[in-house]
Amino acid sequence: MGARVTIADVAARAGVSISTVSLVLNNKPTRISEETRERVRQAAQDIGYSPNKVAQGLRRRLTHTLGLISDSIATTPYAGQMLAGAQDVARENGYMLFLVDTGADPEMEEDAIAQMRAQQVDALIFAAMWHREVSPPSNLPKKAVYLDCFSHEAPRPSVIPDEVAGGRAAVQHLVDAGHTRIAYVDVDEGVPPVASELRHRGYLAVHEEHDLPVDPALHVKGASTHDGGRQAAEQLLALPASQRPTAIFCFNDRMAAGLYTALRCHGLNVPTDMSVVGYDDQQLVAAELYPPLTTVALPHYEMGKWAAQVALGIRAHAASDAPYLMPCPLITRESVASPPVGAPTHPGGEASKKHKGDHSF
Amino acid sequence: MGARVTIADVAARAGVSISTVSLVLNNKPTRISEETRERVRQAAQDIGYSPNKVAQGLRRRLTHTLGLISDSIATTPYAGQMLAGAQDVARENGYMLFLVDTGADPEMEEDAIAQMRAQQVDALIFAAMWHREVSPPSNLPKKAVYLDCFSHEAPRPSVIPDEVAGGRAAVQHLVDAGHTRIAYVDVDEGVPPVASELRHRGYLAVHEEHDLPVDPALHVKGASTHDGGRQAAEQLLALPASQRPTAIFCFNDRMAAGLYTALRCHGLNVPTDMSVVGYDDQQLVAAELYPPLTTVALPHYEMGKWAAQVALGIRAHAASDAPYLMPCPLITRESVASPPVGAPTHPGGEASKKHKGDHSF
Repeated sequence: MGARVTIADVAARAGVSISTVSLVLNNKPTRISEETRERVRQAAQDIGYSPNKVAQGLRRRLTHTLGLISDSIATTPYAGQMLAGAQDVARENGYMLFLVDTGADPEMEEDAIAQMRAQQVDALIFAAMWHREVSPPSNLPKKAVYLDCFSHEAPRPSVIPDEVAGGRAAVQHLVDAGHTRIAYVDVDEGVPPVASELRHRGYLAVHEEHDLPVDPALHVKGASTHDGGRQAAEQLLALPASQRPTAIFCFNDRMAAGLYTALRCHGLNVPTDMSVVGYDDQQLVAAELYPPLTTVALPHYEMGKWAAQVALGIRAHAASDAPYLMPCPLITRESVASPPVGAPTHPGGEASKKHKGDHSF
Repeated sequence: MGARVTIADVAARAGVSISTVSLVLNNKPTRISEETRERVRQAAQDIGYSPNKVAQGLRRRLTHTLGLISDSIATTPYAGQMLAGAQDVARENGYMLFLVDTGADPEMEEDAIAQMRAQQVDALIFAAMWHREVSPPSNLPKKAVYLDCFSHEAPRPSVIPDEVAGGRAAVQHLVDAGHTRIAYVDVDEGVPPVASELRHRGYLAVHEEHDLPVDPALHVKGASTHDGGRQAAEQLLALPASQRPTAIFCFNDRMAAGLYTALRCHGLNVPTDMSVVGYDDQQLVAAELYPPLTTVALPHYEMGKWAAQVALGIRAHAASDAPYLMPCPLITRESVASPPVGAPTHPGGEASKKHKGDHSF
């Protein structure tokens, strides 16, 4: 796909915007000078971007629009970067991204898909604000693409975060710093906890690799909010000193922020008294805590790009029904240090001796 | 407008969703039973929601879609509640809200408007992520509505936050708590600082009303981020003890979070050593700081509702070109207390004696 000539290449060569190229090659009525029009046509010819393809597109009634239907991405502060990634791909290729939030209401979803089809969008993305299984309406087009979700009953190309590898990266980072008693502050909500289970699987895998015992007392749960994190932390801090963790991996950054608050109330400092790793790299939270939070990033922007590229047919995807797993990079900031001197270690814990720094994720 | 019968009234009476009413009255092909269809038609007739109007709408080619074009509201975590407000009004009235982010690129804006018109949206909202003057493309329809922005060159109905009253509310709240030396941590960025100037005007008005001198040393500036707030706070903390403020009003919550960090680094507590009031009631920030931040809310949801109601013609607006000023409510949390005993007061400061608690905002 790297060799494919796109409208962006024409724009770059002609020294004009993508919109201008689109307008000229589609012969739309504009105020663009004839001189610029000629330069665009020449650039397209020079690099082999065939105006015939555009003409074909017109015959096929391409509208140069890409539709994205989501539960609540546009209206909430969590995952807008998915929209940004999809939008950037759309623009680079002369498409406009149309967004509709449905609140995950099945009738709204069906109506939204019907509207998008009525408006003849050229491609459709069906997206979820948080990684989960979805049950889309029956009118979802065969060529639609899932973003941050998947469906067993109605499979389509799908991209989701590699949560297991993300959980591994977080816990391995703590083991590398010398921790053997690592808690997992988990989410406990009335929804299928896909992401939570997968992150926990990564947590368990690292423990197994390093022969670290898994203490059930170090697996606590709460709501996925600041308050939920604070309350879950209180459970850990109520443990006898010998049983306390020296590091905590949190389901998300927001809970980690609540954890910071609980620790401060107990007179404990991050990271000298307690190391903390979050998940999400949530804008307005992770980088702006004190100290800034080491976390695992949800690859929202990259997933949005992937979905748009596959939907527009400019990126190949495997024929299998398995979702594409987008890597979740570890973002190292200032919330992890070695365990305090004299802190309890696990009876069998010799992680830092065994591990040689070769991360396997 | 309260007496106007809407599709939502039909839905409530028939005990079905708005979508169902829309499908039935528009005679769209669906799997809805004849029994339900009849109930919907009867409900519409009972309350005087005329199917003829729907038929007229079809003749006028109503698409039951509302378009919203913004710079970057959908893709950023700041103002999604504007979209939520517009969306809720759209749904209550049987419309679907289509969103496009343009990155404030003029060509993209023009293309987006052209696309929205080509798809025959019934109404159009032109929105800005932050309150400012805009220069929309010349193809903006005459009936479009501005949301969180305005234009002198191309006036349309417009709704913006009442920033002056918001600034007054913040500073009055601090005066009520007994403060006389109140700093303003302002934003200093390369954009026309509409909101900042208006909030500062509110700050000055309260000082004048209470005969409090305005000390230029207490007006500091920084970037509109956590780091910007921290650096601005350092300027205040570098003042001689006798000149320091006892309370700080921040341009936004994010800067207030940076201020919290700076204060903590200096061993100062909020609110016992320093009272703080923010602005925005930013999701993921204001309520989740420690202690939770008292702030002035941007009425994003209410503004979104207003814009959609005016765009759809179900809310009247004054004929004048002056924007509608939406109130910004004070949200009281835990970051304001009385000044520390022995703290410096202003030479002429007798605010707490003069003020009798009758807020004038």
